[in-house]
Amino acid sequence: MPYPITDLPAETWARLPTRQQEQALIEAAAARYGVGDPATLVAAPGTQALIQLLPRLVPKSRVAVLGPTYEEHAHCWTRQGHDVTVVSDFQPADVTIVVNPNNPTGKLLTPGMLSRDRGLLIVDEAFVDFLAPGASLASNLPTNTIVLRSFGKVYGLAGARLGFAIAEKTIADRIRDELGPWAVSGPALEIGRRALSDAAWLKASAARLMTDGVRLDTLLVSSGFEILGGTALFRLARHPEASSLIDKLGQHGIHVRRFAREPHWVRFGLPANDTEFSRVAAALA
Amino acid sequence: MPYPITDLPAETWARLPTRQQEQALIEAAAARYGVGDPATLVAAPGTQALIQLLPRLVPKSRVAVLGPTYEEHAHCWTRQGHDVTVVSDFQPADVTIVVNPNNPTGKLLTPGMLSRDRGLLIVDEAFVDFLAPGASLASNLPTNTIVLRSFGKVYGLAGARLGFAIAEKTIADRIRDELGPWAVSGPALEIGRRALSDAAWLKASAARLMTDGVRLDTLLVSSGFEILGGTALFRLARHPEASSLIDKLGQHGIHVRRFAREPHWVRFGLPANDTEFSRVAAALA
Repeated sequence: MPYPITDLPAETWARLPTRQQEQALIEAAAARYGVGDPATLVAAPGTQALIQLLPRLVPKSRVAVLGPTYEEHAHCWTRQGHDVTVVSDFQPADVTIVVNPNNPTGKLLTPGMLSRDRGLLIVDEAFVDFLAPGASLASNLPTNTIVLRSFGKVYGLAGARLGFAIAEKTIADRIRDELGPWAVSGPALEIGRRALSDAAWLKASAARLMTDGVRLDTLLVSSGFEILGGTALFRLARHPEASSLIDKLGQHGIHVRRFAREPHWVRFGLPANDTEFSRVAAALA
Repeated sequence: MPYPITDLPAETWARLPTRQQEQALIEAAAARYGVGDPATLVAAPGTQALIQLLPRLVPKSRVAVLGPTYEEHAHCWTRQGHDVTVVSDFQPADVTIVVNPNNPTGKLLTPGMLSRDRGLLIVDEAFVDFLAPGASLASNLPTNTIVLRSFGKVYGLAGARLGFAIAEKTIADRIRDELGPWAVSGPALEIGRRALSDAAWLKASAARLMTDGVRLDTLLVSSGFEILGGTALFRLARHPEASSLIDKLGQHGIHVRRFAREPHWVRFGLPANDTEFSRVAAALA
């Protein structure tokens, strides 16, 4: 269920975004994420823009990506000429990248496991929002750490393109400089500010996702899937016939993620409404 | 007068932008700009994002910026470690940057003056849209040239963040790779596609800008300004009391551009409506 967009002022479209509009967004995000110093928070046109940018801030490095995980991290660091290894556990490196909780497995590392000195640490917290606040590093940032937070996933507004980096001020300043002025659209600044300030909507959304998650689990288990993991927003499940079931789901208009190296895995996003639940059920029947 | 935004489909906000949506925008832009091969066109979240990105595509170079001009070009190339000189005429360099027509002077170079082999040529055509089509290099791109086109300025939607690069396919591919997926928001893809396909709106806008430009010129000249140049969207004017007049305009809510090195210059955007014209008149009275 996307955050409702109502009565966007015409000037959010017509005018270049102002510093005040950006600052208002940053303050709402700082309050929402528990970030003490707004100067350590940077807004970007989507987390992907930050994933593209970070490999350019660092000289050629040995990069360890905890995986298997979301592939854009390894992809972008490799393209910028870094020496990238996907590792199953921490190992010495100049830069370590963790998606936490992990996508697609849902595996969650505690702040204590992350807060050890290992060179630069990048923690992509795209799916942390519906966990207890202590799961995020945002409010208590270890040194030499960059945290990424997603707006679009949490608020159902992936098309708006908005995400955040949280890092000590010198790193945050560099990210801001590289993004340049007016990086985030006027409408995204306005919608972001409203949504991030709206605790009631987030609470209601969390409750709904909990119910929908149980409903999806029930449906998947009764269809012969084993639930391997997930987060509030998706489930990773295994089925011996995964490949043909993915095709059937597609024919019913349900697009799930498949994994080349794990042919029995399927990642299901939470169906958005009853119609989508019915389609999933029909495809798996 | 901004391009009207009506009935944006909810999924432009809710879903990650699709390849089809991006392709539809690119095709509309190719038709509008007279670009034969859509693979040479790249959409970005504003021209500024491209200005930030281009200095990263090129090894450390001698860069000549024809100036004085929009300062972000020299600023971004300098920050990436290039050797940047602002020059008043072409001179040998690895990279030459021209804003054409120039901002703020309005000076226009012909395609013939630009189409000579001088290493990499970057032509920022942010204000070319209301000139004759032949003023742009977009439809007949010289080798080793990157053309930048602005969407927000022309359609009065600077807050939407949309701009384009046009370059031979190998360069266009690199720019697209560096921007990464989902760089442009879903709403900007949709609004851009509609607006770039709407020849009638553009024609009406051109006529209105022509009338408004004459109205602004008359007001400025009658207030003791000398018109130095400009484009359909702004005028550069000189006044011996420029500095105090700029302060007075600001007090009336009219923000104009001042120039540290040319204290008698003022750049006026075209007033958006009668109310703004009245404010300018009141401030200059």
